[in-house]
Order: sequence, then C-alpha cells, then structure tokens
Amino acid sequence: MATLSDIGVAAGINLLSAFIFFIAFAILRLQPFNDRVYFPKWYLKGLRSSPSRSGAFVKKFVNLDFRSYLRFLSWMPEALKMPELELIDHAGLDSAVYLRIYLIGLKIFVPITLLAWAILVPVNYTNKALELQLRNVTSSDIDKLSISNVPDGSDRFWTHIVMAYAFTFWTCFVLRKEYEKVANLRLQFLASEKRRPDQFTVLVRNVPPDPDESVSESVEHFFLVNHPDTYLTHQVVCNANKLAKLVEKRKSMQNWLDYYQLKYSRNNAKRPLMKTGFLGLWGKQVDAIDHHIFEIEKLSNEIAEERERVLKDPKAIMPAAFVSFKSRWGAAVCAQTQQVRNPTSVLTEWAPEPRDVYWQNLAIPYVSISVRRLIMAVAFFFLTFFFIIPIASVQALATIEGLEKALPFLEPLIEIGFIKSVIQGFLPGIALKLFLIFLPTILMIMSKFEGFTSLSSLERRSATRYYLFNVVNVFLGSVIAGSAMEQLNTFIKQSANEIPKTIGVAVPIRATFFITYIMVDGWAGIAAEILMLKPLIFYHLKNFFLVKTEKDREKAMDPGSLGFNTGEPRIQLYFLLGMVYATVTPVLLPFILVFFGLAYVVFRHQIINVYNQEYESAAAFWPDVHGRIIIALLVSHVTLIGLLSTKHLAQSAPLLVALAVLTIWFYTFCKARYEPAFVKYPLQEAMMKDTLDCTREPNFNLKPYLQNAYIHPIFKDNGDDEEEEKFSTKLEDESVLVPTKRQSRRNTPVPSKISGASSPSLPEVVPERSVP
Amino acid sequence: MATLSDIGVAAGINLLSAFIFFIAFAILRLQPFNDRVYFPKWYLKGLRSSPSRSGAFVKKFVNLDFRSYLRFLSWMPEALKMPELELIDHAGLDSAVYLRIYLIGLKIFVPITLLAWAILVPVNYTNKALELQLRNVTSSDIDKLSISNVPDGSDRFWTHIVMAYAFTFWTCFVLRKEYEKVANLRLQFLASEKRRPDQFTVLVRNVPPDPDESVSESVEHFFLVNHPDTYLTHQVVCNANKLAKLVEKRKSMQNWLDYYQLKYSRNNAKRPLMKTGFLGLWGKQVDAIDHHIFEIEKLSNEIAEERERVLKDPKAIMPAAFVSFKSRWGAAVCAQTQQVRNPTSVLTEWAPEPRDVYWQNLAIPYVSISVRRLIMAVAFFFLTFFFIIPIASVQALATIEGLEKALPFLEPLIEIGFIKSVIQGFLPGIALKLFLIFLPTILMIMSKFEGFTSLSSLERRSATRYYLFNVVNVFLGSVIAGSAMEQLNTFIKQSANEIPKTIGVAVPIRATFFITYIMVDGWAGIAAEILMLKPLIFYHLKNFFLVKTEKDREKAMDPGSLGFNTGEPRIQLYFLLGMVYATVTPVLLPFILVFFGLAYVVFRHQIINVYNQEYESAAAFWPDVHGRIIIALLVSHVTLIGLLSTKHLAQSAPLLVALAVLTIWFYTFCKARYEPAFVKYPLQEAMMKDTLDCTREPNFNLKPYLQNAYIHPIFKDNGDDEEEEKFSTKLEDESVLVPTKRQSRRNTPVPSKISGASSPSLPEVVPERSVP
Repeated sequence: MATLSDIGVAAGINLLSAFIFFIAFAILRLQPFNDRVYFPKWYLKGLRSSPSRSGAFVKKFVNLDFRSYLRFLSWMPEALKMPELELIDHAGLDSAVYLRIYLIGLKIFVPITLLAWAILVPVNYTNKALELQLRNVTSSDIDKLSISNVPDGSDRFWTHIVMAYAFTFWTCFVLRKEYEKVANLRLQFLASEKRRPDQFTVLVRNVPPDPDESVSESVEHFFLVNHPDTYLTHQVVCNANKLAKLVEKRKSMQNWLDYYQLKYSRNNAKRPLMKTGFLGLWGKQVDAIDHHIFEIEKLSNEIAEERERVLKDPKAIMPAAFVSFKSRWGAAVCAQTQQVRNPTSVLTEWAPEPRDVYWQNLAIPYVSISVRRLIMAVAFFFLTFFFIIPIASVQALATIEGLEKALPFLEPLIEIGFIKSVIQGFLPGIALKLFLIFLPTILMIMSKFEGFTSLSSLERRSATRYYLFNVVNVFLGSVIAGSAMEQLNTFIKQSANEIPKTIGVAVPIRATFFITYIMVDGWAGIAAEILMLKPLIFYHLKNFFLVKTEKDREKAMDPGSLGFNTGEPRIQLYFLLGMVYATVTPVLLPFILVFFGLAYVVFRHQIINVYNQEYESAAAFWPDVHGRIIIALLVSHVTLIGLLSTKHLAQSAPLLVALAVLTIWFYTFCKARYEPAFVKYPLQEAMMKDTLDCTREPNFNLKPYLQNAYIHPIFKDNGDDEEEEKFSTKLEDESVLVPTKRQSRRNTPVPSKISGASSPSLPEVVPERSVP
Repeated sequence: MATLSDIGVAAGINLLSAFIFFIAFAILRLQPFNDRVYFPKWYLKGLRSSPSRSGAFVKKFVNLDFRSYLRFLSWMPEALKMPELELIDHAGLDSAVYLRIYLIGLKIFVPITLLAWAILVPVNYTNKALELQLRNVTSSDIDKLSISNVPDGSDRFWTHIVMAYAFTFWTCFVLRKEYEKVANLRLQFLASEKRRPDQFTVLVRNVPPDPDESVSESVEHFFLVNHPDTYLTHQVVCNANKLAKLVEKRKSMQNWLDYYQLKYSRNNAKRPLMKTGFLGLWGKQVDAIDHHIFEIEKLSNEIAEERERVLKDPKAIMPAAFVSFKSRWGAAVCAQTQQVRNPTSVLTEWAPEPRDVYWQNLAIPYVSISVRRLIMAVAFFFLTFFFIIPIASVQALATIEGLEKALPFLEPLIEIGFIKSVIQGFLPGIALKLFLIFLPTILMIMSKFEGFTSLSSLERRSATRYYLFNVVNVFLGSVIAGSAMEQLNTFIKQSANEIPKTIGVAVPIRATFFITYIMVDGWAGIAAEILMLKPLIFYHLKNFFLVKTEKDREKAMDPGSLGFNTGEPRIQLYFLLGMVYATVTPVLLPFILVFFGLAYVVFRHQIINVYNQEYESAAAFWPDVHGRIIIALLVSHVTLIGLLSTKHLAQSAPLLVALAVLTIWFYTFCKARYEPAFVKYPLQEAMMKDTLDCTREPNFNLKPYLQNAYIHPIFKDNGDDEEEEKFSTKLEDESVLVPTKRQSRRNTPVPSKISGASSPSLPEVVPERSVP
C-alpha cells in the first residue's frame, strides 16, 4: 500500500515526463523540416503548401527564432480556440464527436469529484476502523480516505448508497443530454451537407442468381418494377481483390525503383545491385534499377490483363450492387424496407461513403456470414479467456533452458553474461507485449472475417471486442489478480452472490495500482501521443530515401487517424475506473480528471493539425460509447453491492439492485429514443432536402453524378502514374474554386470556413493507407 | 417412487376418465338442443341455421336414433378429414397454425421416442447400479430404465451425449422446416387474401400536438407532404372509452329487461318486482319492467349526449390516426420507415385488423409506455417469485383458528364437525387455486397496462409471461420442491456450476410425478375440453331466461376461441418435459406422444366445429412458439450437464456447452432468416398484389372502401336495437351472395369452400365478448 506521499512522488515523476514530452514537442514542431509531420492536415486541405519562408537556407530546416521557443505551451489555447461548428467543418463530425467523449468525461466527473470530496471523503476520514484493526498494518493514508475506513455495519454506509444514487442519476442526466446533442448534431450534419452520392445510394447484397439474366440486368429489372418512381441507376460490384493486390505490389516495386534511382543519382559512380532471392539475401545478383523496371513492366501487363478479365468475366461480378435513386426519399425508403419474401436475399442497407466501403466483403452470402459470426464469437471467447495459454507456453520456451534445449547450437552465445541477463529479463515479457501490441490488429482481422462492409463498422466492431477484452483482462484481471482463465474458473465455481463480494473486497485494495496506471498510461501516454514519434521517424526516412518530387513528399506524410478501434476502448477504461471508484476511493477521481482534461487538449490539437480521417460515419459510433458508460455504471453497482455485503450491510442490496434496474431501463429508454437517429433516416428530412435541391437546382442531372461514384477504387485511380497525375491535375483544376492557397502560417493555423472535406473526390489524393 | 404397475394403474384410470368424457360428449352432442353448443362455428358461418328436422316434437330436443350412438368416436376421423388448406379457409390461418404446434410435437417426439427406446432404454436397463446401491431402497422399475441406473463414471454416458446431439439436431431440423413452412403459409395467406382494409392502412401514433392545426389536419398535411404519391385518407381515433362503458351498461340493462319481460309473459298473474339497491338486496321496491325501461331510456339519452361530445370535443380526439394509402406498396413503405427526426413521435406500424384493434390503448404517449413497461417488468418479477407470500398469509388466515380470531361471531358455526373438516381440507388450498385460475386474467391486465394496441399482441405478451411463470413455478417448482422464492434464494447462493447439478440430480427423481401430471392435466384435461361444460351450462341458462327470438339464441351461443394466452404456454410445458426427459427418463416420452396425438384430434375438432376466433393475426405468434421450443432444448442441455457432472463425467460438459452454443446460434440464424416474414411486408409482394388489383378492377374506388374501416366499433354498431337490426339485415342482404344456407347435417358438418371469414364486416354480428 502506497502512502499519499508515494503517490505524490509518482505523480510528480509522471507529470515531469509529460512535461518533457511537451517540451520536446514544442521544439520539434517549430522546426520547418518537421512541418509536414506536425501539420499534415493543413497540407492535405491545401491550406498550407510549404513551411519555407523567405530567409537564409538554414532557416528552411531549423527555426532560429528563439522567441517562439519561449511560448512552448502556446498550442494549448490555440487548440481550444476553434469553435465546435468550425471544427466539424474542418475535421468532420466523427472527430468532433470523438472529442465530446473526453468532454463528457469532464462533465460527468467534475461534479462527481466535487461532491465526493465534499461529502464522502470527510465521512470516510472521520472513522477509526483502520486504526482499530491492528492486524491491518498495511493500511495507508489513501485507505483512510476510502470506504475501507468505515467500520462494518456502520450507518454511514447510507451516505455511500445515497451518493451512488446521486452519481448514477447525474451520469444518466449527462448521458441523455449528450445523446440528444449528438443525435441532433448528426441530423444537422446530414441535413447541412452538400449533395453526396451515399445519400442517394443503397447497397444491395445477396442478389439471387438468375439463369437468364446477369446480375446487372436482374438488379435493374427488380428495382424498375418495385421502385418504379424513384429508381435511377446502379453499379454492380466486381471482385477486384486480385487486381488490388497486383496494383499494391507494383506500388511497392515503384517505391524500390525510386529508392535505387535516388541512390544512383546521388552516387553516379556505381549502379546499385541487388539479389533476386528472399529479402535480397541470396540469389542471382542483378542491376537493381533494370530489374525493377522490368518487373514493373511485367506487373503492368498482368494488371492490364486482370483488369480486362474483371470487366468481362461474368464470374468476377459479385451478387451485390450499389443502387442509386432519383431522390433521397427513394433511397431512404429502399434502405429501410424489406424487398422480397426471402429476408436473406436482396438485402438493402444504406451505402457507406465511397471511401468507407470495405470492398473485399461485399460478396459474402448470408449463411456464410451467419456461420462466420458464430466462429468469431467462439474464437473471441477463447481469445479473451485463454489467450494466456499459448503465451505462457511461449514464455516457457523463452527461458534460458528452453532456448538451449530448442536451439542447442545457440548455447555458446546464450551463455555470454550480458546476453543471458537480457534474455532472462526481457524475453518472458516480450511474448505478452507483442501479443498486446498486435491485439487490435487481430481483432480487426476477426471483424473483417465476419463480413462487415464498411471500414466504420469494422472499427466499431473491433472497438467493442477490444473493450470487452480490456474489461476482463485489464480491469477484472487487475482487481482479482490472476489470469482471465482463473477468473472464469472462480466465477463458475462461486455462487451468484459471492461474485460481487470477491470483486467488492478487492476493489478498494487495488486503488493505488489503478492510480499509478492512470498516471503512466493516461498522463504520460497522452503526452507521448502528441510527439508522433513513429510518423516523425518514418517521414524523415522516406524523405531521405524516396522523395524526389513535391508529390512524393506529399505521399511520405502519414497523418494517421483517430483509430477509433483502439482509442475509444481505452477511454472507456477510465470511465469504468472513475465510476467504480467514485463511491469507494474518491481519491482516484482527480487523477481521472487530469487525464480527461489533458487528453481533450491533446486530441483537439491533433485533430485540428494532424489526423486525417479515412471516412466520415457522422458519429455512428455514439450508441456504443453511450452503452459502455452504462456498463461502467452497472459494474460500479455490482461492486458496491458486493462491498457492502462484506461490510455487514447486505440489507442495502435491494436498494442498489433497484438502482441497477433503473439504469438498465434508462439504457433501453435511450436506445429506443435516440438510437434510430443513428440507424435510420427519417423520411421527412429526406423529403425536405429533396425539395430544397429541387428548387435550388431544378436542372441538375443526377445520373452522371451518381454513375461512377461507387466504382472500385482500383478502377478510379488505376495506379499508372501518368493517369494518377492526370487525375490530380484534374483535381487541381477543380480546386481553383478554392479561393486561396494560403502560405503556411506557423503556430497560428487559422482555420478556414472553406471546407474541402465535403467534396467526395478529394481523399483520393491522400496516400492509401492499409487499415491497421 | 412408483413402480411400473403403479403407473399402469394410473394410466388406466386416466384413460378411463378420458373415455368417459368422450362418451358423455358423444351423447350430448347428438342431442339437437345442444346443437348450438357443439357446432356454433357452422351457425356463425351461416352454413347451419337450425338443428330441427321434420319429425316428432320430442325429436326436436332429444336424439332417438340409437344407431348414431354406436359410432360415438366417429367425430375423430371426421376431424382429421378436412385438408389443411380448407381448414385455413374455414377457420383462418391462426387456428390452422395453432394446430401445427401439436403436429410439430408429434414430428419431434415420434422419432425421438423410437430412438430413445431403441438405444437408451437398453443401455440404461443393462446396468446394475441401482441394485448395487442397497441404501437406495426406493428405486423402482422406472428408474431401472432411466439414466439413474448407469453407474457413476461409466463410459455408457457417451451414448446419452450422442443422443442429446441427435435429439437436438433432429428438433432443430424439424423447427427449421416448420418455420419455413409457416412463414410461407403466412405469406401465401397474405397474398391470396381479398382486399382488406388493414393491407392499406398504417396506424400512426404520437402525432405531435400543433397549436394551429387539429390532429386530423396535421396528419393530413404531414402525409400529403411526405407521402405525396400514395397517401389516400385517414381516420383519427376518438377517446370513446366512456361511451363504450355506457353502451355496455345499457346492454346489461336490456338483458335484465328481457329476463323480467319473459318472466312476466310466462306468469301473467304478477308483475315482477325488484329492489333498487346493491345487487337487488335492499332499497326501494319498484316494478322491475318499468324501472328497467326507465333506466334504459336514461342511458340512451346519456349515450346520445356522450356521442355528440366525443364527435365534437377536440379533447376527445387522440393523437393517433389510421392512415390509409392508395396502394399496399405505399402502406408497406410507411409502416417500415421512420417518419420524423424524433423517433418517438409519428410512430408508424401496420394497422391491425379492425376487429383486432384494442382501442383503449391507442392514445398512450411514448414515455408513459416506457415507464409502464418498467413497472410491469418489476411487477412480473415479484409476481413470479413472491406470489406465494400473499397466498401464504391468506392461507394462514383461512385456518380454523385464524377464522375464529378474525370473525369471532362465526365460532359456533365453525365448530360443527362437518363444516370444520370442510374448512380444514378445503380452505387452505382454495386461495392458491383461485390465484392460479385468475392468473391469466391478471397477466392480461398487466399486458393491457403496458399499452399494446392489438388483441393479438396482448395475447402474445400474456402467453410469454404465463410461460415464464409456468417454467419457474411448475417445472422448476416441481423439480426442486419449494416455492420460487426459495429457489431464487438457492440459486443466488449457489455457484454457477452448482445450479445445473441441483436441477440435474432432481430431474430423474421427479419423473413419475411428471408422468402423473401429464396424464391428469394432459389426457383427462384435453378430453374434458371437448365437453365444453361451461358454455353448455351457460347456453342453457341463457336459453331459459333470456332467449325470446332466434336472434337472441344466436347471441346466447358462446363458441369461445383458442385462447392463445393460456393454451400455448401449457403446450410448451409438454415440450419442455419431453426435451428434458428424452435423454434422462425415456419412459416419459410415450405419455407425451399420447398427449400430443389426443390434443391434436380434439383441438382440430373444436376448431372446425366450435371456436370462433376473435381476430386473425396470420400466425404472428409463430416466432414465440419457435423460441420457446429452443428454450426447452437449452434447459435440457443444462440439466444433462448438471446430471453428468454429478455422475463423475464432468469432462463431458464442454461438449454439451458446445451443443447449447450451437442451439443458440441456430436460434439467431432462424430469427434473422424467418422472423422478418412475421414482422415486415416485402415490397415485391405488395407491388405484385397492387398490380394484380389494378388489372383486375382498374376502376375500383378505394376511398369509400377505406373511409370507415377503422371507426370505433361503438359508432359502427351503435347499440340501438333498431340500428343493430338494420345493420344485420344489411349484412343478410349481403350474404345473399353466399349461395346456400344448408340445413344442418348432423355428424357430418361437410366443410364448404365458400368462406365468409375473409369478409371483414361479418364478425360484427358475433356477440361481443370481453377479452379474458
């Protein structure tokens, strides 16, 4: 048990490290040669084209203006300055609403912290239970402020119950307000948007095969008959997965070619050589530039062939199509209704944004999806509860003895003192660390296997799984020390009223651990986020090895995105900790407040200056966020029930069970009241927008606009550099409409009202990033 | 523990009593004066108008043809003769599909019984575990055939596990087939039906109040704007609950008047007198006929006033309306989409059939419904688990001592020997019996409170609750002797892996009890159903006291209906018993088979000849039936897991857990695959029917047809006898279209292809029955 002063020291250290990160950030971001790492968003939006200023050559790379270093925290108020509506305009609704998660954390926990410190802390502190328990010598100052200090059976516990009610009601109140606000933001966002292809388009899957007609014909006939007044056009989906792979391969070849050409141009003396074998380690030695040019040519031919095949072969046409309608009303009707008798064929749903579509999954038939879900549910269960088994076996192997046995020829090497100690200290942990690093990727692969059709839904699904994993393995795993597997065993063998007790008893004891966790993972982790170390290093490596033109430099930028699938579950862990400890150990609350405050500022800065979202789902993730905070509330109730029943106050359980029932009811109420705003599209809204459009541009021809909106990206941007350039010059011609390409204004990236984000074609310029 | 011969004797007794019921039925149904009790369906359909034959006066009341008595079981093959399609035509899809529940019971359990007796019974019987356990002296022959006879840890248990798999797969196979079949039947039924108002109509609730417009205007404007091409007309809903009560009161007064007039006409000497006070027990003595005529007149005036008020007062208009569309397509679109931003206002759903509407609940606002659901969920929880508390306290009062204390003046009476023994033997049980009799009514009241808008959904909801109550209190209550409250206590205090053990150990022991239960409740109960004792007595009472005209006699008939809310949960109990005991005590299975076979024949007869459904929901209840059989499967898995873990075969648990997971997956698969057929209406179907209608009757004017379809029944049939007669004569004029009014053909109610059920206005002739 740590004392208050221990915690203070730890807090100091973590604050200091956060401070160091901030100073490093302040210095790095002011250097012009890092400009594209720390302000990529502005480049991508075309509002900044180069960091250079008139001045000496050195100034192009290093900032010599010492005054600017003094205001090293100046980015913080700047990040907070941009009003929310402008932020939505600038970075999209997803990002703006993502920030609201931190804000809701502050809204919930500031009053709770105040109340807890004003009432609970004095109530806890003025007891002498811990002093009397002489055997409990490990009790610390923190425990004196916690519920552990209240003697068994004391009437003072009623304060905690009343507080639990107050906290729950306050949280629900904030949640409801916020749900309403976000739902309105979403509807406003959808209403205020310009014409977008996905507003008119419905994704149709599982078109039944017809021996007499092609997929395209049967889709057209079906919708001409059943939506005669609104059907406009459709695009069938091709299976271009192989083509996409080939193009990807050619791109990487092109990168290597660039690298070798640059190398040759820098050192004309020697033509670069390479080996053709695995990773260039063995095989025939050839001239690298010639080899790559030859390979690229070969691939280009293959790609052309494959493209022909995809376009002509009827087998490459998948039984899915994007069907576009004359009006938003028509699309809304089609997306929300059942089309044919068989509810698993001709499935309709809103088409995701073109850039949000996950093309690979569009062709999976219904039964297969159903089986895949089952397999993944079982797999996830085992992943959560039994992941420790393979890791433990790897760890057993990764000891000195295990290594010596498995790879006897390494023995002399291993026996060297330094290496031995490294292996002993490092190897056993590395398997677990590697697993945890790759966990989000594993979960994403699982989601992809399940057959979701948009990136946003893939990320939401992964987030849910990651959250569950965290709750079981991080929260419960830390509370009841032991692996999830052991927990499962405990829980199965314990009676239903023992389980809350087990958790309830352990929770106050682990308070100091979680305080440390919050400081290390929350405070220092968030401060490290702003440094962007990985993109920084990669950018400079690419800059050195690959960049020839300004366009290459553009490509070398890696702004990244919010990463909903990893970020959100981590925030939710703080909600869980805050809720659980609010009544038990209020000392923990200020630490959470600092986390939410810091994270809010940091992520606001990142969203404004760095991240570039891959898609816009119009805050479709909010119901998940809401649901998980409710879960945190319920866990807190269960904990308190267990804790109080060990404190000889079991008669309070019905009161807390009632609170939990009320919370569940609140959840169902909110679900029915607000969730439709995130799933459906009201006909009234659609009709209003249609009418508006009609009066504004009565002669707009929708068909050519929608004709090619949902073509597989591989056909749009067909990989040939020339065509790509054609495409981007076309884009630049278009962007003449954007009035100014302002010069970079360092430190003050004044946001602009002119939004390029609503143009659906812009993102294609962004280098393609594979989904993590 | 009963031996096989004990069971045999009990079976004999119960078969005999069933036999006696059948003979009584055979005699009673052949008497012409009972014709309206046993063949009301044919009267209501207009296919039989009187049982009388040319012949002696006596023959009008008693059947003297002795030959007809000899063939006293002849109704059985007759009941089975009518093919299913004709049955659907004759009695509606609801009834036909209800019969399929019994049929599915046979389909599932005949192969399971054969397999169990061929494999499990020999496997169980060839062990000597019970003989070796000398202490277990109570074991019987039945136990020798059950799983109890297999020694602990024996490998023979793998047979049971394999059988559990086989039974589950077979059941799922049958369930899937059946779901598909019923879904197709439903869609065919909907497709083959004639034009019906509910196909074109959507119920709109929670119309938001508008200060400038009436509800009617704002509904009209909204749908004219948002469904411009399809909106046709609408009818607002009036709050006529008070009016309905007044009319009901006048009806009862009219009945009394009839009774007194009949009495006077039979005995002209004395005008009947009555007292005006409570139940006619005290108060002023008046002339009964004059008094009633006066009262009826007064009520008629009140009714006229109230009717005026309802029609004119804007406050009597509820924020709900039935909106009709020009096409089925338009209605299908409107019913399946969200209309406005706020998902709790302008809620649209398919309109129920006009006779299925539960008018009282149409005006409940959304938030209120949400709160009501919460209250009822909590109330139902307490009803299920704590109903024993008030009953126990009543029982405590209902002892001799309790009565003497509470009502001391009764002491001399109670002390009489005979009365004392009656009280002692009878009173304590009567409280429980009364509660169980009134339980379906209580559950129905709870469902009404929750705000469902159609009788069919009310019945479905009550059935679900009744089923849960039965599972907890009848099944679990019998397995683990003790009240549900004690069970709850046990379950909370037991660990998760102990609960299946508790059930698993108890299940084989209770086999004989359940066999007896099946015989008494199932065999004899079903046989008693066909006698229709209550309607028989009531009909003859009414016939004697009230009937003056042929129309009155028509009114005196009480054909009853299937009573989904009580009948279906009871069948489900047999599914549960069958599933649970299939692997444990296969001896029980033949008893279940007899039940399903008998019930199928009896209910087929009743549906053909007696019951008159109040509404037609087109088998909307099937998903519930399907889900509950799945629950039975899951309970059987849990039982087997528990049983085997007490038999030292705990390592088999994962296999059975996997089976349960597969079953749950099967449920979700079926839910997604077939349930939409019961909830949504595919646009393709709608379009097809619309097109057909268009070509068949291009000039049909839909508006007048739909204009008055959804008027509150109180305005349609306004209670005045004259108008009622007008109405029914109008109906008779219409029914001229039905070619023949055949004479009664006793014993062979040859079904007719001419269906009157599809005409929506016919049921109004049926005397109104209050929902049970």
